[in-house]
Amino acid sequence: MTGKLFGVGTGPGDPELLTLKAAKAISTADVVAYFAKQGNASNARAIVAELITGQIEEQLGYPVTTEIDRRHEDYKSATSGFYAEAAERVAAHLDAGRNVAVLSEGDPLFYGSYMHLHVRLAHRYPTEVIPGITAMSGCWSTAGLPLVQGDDILSVLPGTLDEVDLRSRLDNTDGAVIMKVGRNLPKIRRAIEAAGRLDDAVYVERGTMANGLSMRLADKPDDVAPYFALILVPGWSNRP
Amino acid sequence: MTGKLFGVGTGPGDPELLTLKAAKAISTADVVAYFAKQGNASNARAIVAELITGQIEEQLGYPVTTEIDRRHEDYKSATSGFYAEAAERVAAHLDAGRNVAVLSEGDPLFYGSYMHLHVRLAHRYPTEVIPGITAMSGCWSTAGLPLVQGDDILSVLPGTLDEVDLRSRLDNTDGAVIMKVGRNLPKIRRAIEAAGRLDDAVYVERGTMANGLSMRLADKPDDVAPYFALILVPGWSNRP
Ligand SMILES: C[S@@+](CC[C@H](N)C(=O)[O-])C[C@H]1O[C@@H](n2cnc3c(N)ncnc32)[C@H](O)[C@@H]1O
Ligand SMILES: C[S@@+](CC[C@H](N)C(=O)[O-])C[C@H]1O[C@@H](n2cnc3c(N)ncnc32)[C@H](O)[C@@H]1O
Repeated sequence: MTGKLFGVGTGPGDPELLTLKAAKAISTADVVAYFAKQGNASNARAIVAELITGQIEEQLGYPVTTEIDRRHEDYKSATSGFYAEAAERVAAHLDAGRNVAVLSEGDPLFYGSYMHLHVRLAHRYPTEVIPGITAMSGCWSTAGLPLVQGDDILSVLPGTLDEVDLRSRLDNTDGAVIMKVGRNLPKIRRAIEAAGRLDDAVYVERGTMANGLSMRLADKPDDVAPYFALILVPGWSNRP
Repeated sequence: MTGKLFGVGTGPGDPELLTLKAAKAISTADVVAYFAKQGNASNARAIVAELITGQIEEQLGYPVTTEIDRRHEDYKSATSGFYAEAAERVAAHLDAGRNVAVLSEGDPLFYGSYMHLHVRLAHRYPTEVIPGITAMSGCWSTAGLPLVQGDDILSVLPGTLDEVDLRSRLDNTDGAVIMKVGRNLPKIRRAIEAAGRLDDAVYVERGTMANGLSMRLADKPDDVAPYFALILVPGWSNRP
């Protein structure tokens, strides 16, 4: 008998935002696996630390690829090789009959690194994906910001889009969430201002984490943003 | 001392998909409030039934407005009057010092009816919004369908959009989620086919509920869909 693979969403940071199902899957797993940058602690593991009480731990350490350009073939083959190898490490546990819970920040199938294991393993082993609270849900809840209602359209946009594209997409949507802020903040701010939506936009950093904060984007005095940051542009113009 | 208002996400259907925080807020609330169509049971209440053990219950019954056109002024004033009155019923409990948990299917601030209370009460009372697993997260997890990755764009679209608009928005996004399927299914199917994405689209009905099901949209033999149904169009074309 092979083990079962669980892709488990840990939510955006607050350990209380785990689902009952996720907490159970992690507690009863034989192996808890997670991705982390080499030499760094895993954020997903930190969120669920209280539930780790002796399970085997499998840290899947990303190779250091900062010196290779992301669009270069060498980068693609390095990451692809890494994910293939990580999948085989998880598969070895499953072959030995051990259930494996792979942790994923937020929701596993929504921009999560678990997806790279899922596509390699879900057709080979019994698999269950346990959804998690997404970063965006955690952030608009923390900010108390109603996002979309009724027949609104919501666009989830990466901050890596170019300025013109970002602006035209903001012109053509009701609500928007902009992920991957970091270094893209000055450009994102210009696009939001050009779309006439700077007054409504809200910046959230480390949403639901102990040291989280949120403010109107217009009030943010600098252009410094960490990896865990996103911007919310509310829709819902016609409140009944 | 006034009570505290909690907007509590119940998730999409499976009671195990409540967060630990939501379960605690409901269990310890003095009052549990929920919307329901008059004469119908509340779906959100059904999800959390095991946690209701003597709290005061406040059912906020929607007025029957099926005979009035949604775009008509009479409809707008009837619903607006209803939400104002529902807010005052909740406010009366808060004024009496009782904590109130307002249940919301999925996530409260994502197309949730709780939003109508939030905008009327959050500036008047201490308020906390507890996020929930959205219907879309529940559905793509059930279907085991990776939705968006990397720099993908995700569009959340109401099935009420007209066919041409729906098709052009599908042409201009990586992943898409189409909500409010119901009677719109034939039109949605035509738009997805026109956009060349019928082979990838997945239909999910009552995702994470006991009687849920999912299938390729292309395999769905009829055009009948209940209220609790949505369609997923995956992005993530460039798997590394
Ligand atoms: C690779 S995506 C992971 C998304 C995650 N799987 C989810 O369901 O939300 C990483 C991005 O999510 C956002 N993010 C994740 N956690 C966050 C948090 N606690 N607060 C603000 N943004 C966060 C940031 O924009 C970051 O660039
Ligand atoms: C008013 S919206 C509520 C959305 C909810 N607040 C959320 O966070 O997902 C109702 C729509 O959500 C979708 N929906 C809600 N629950 C669902 C489920 N269990 N399975 C499939 N679709 C669902 C349907 O498309 C329905 O038209």
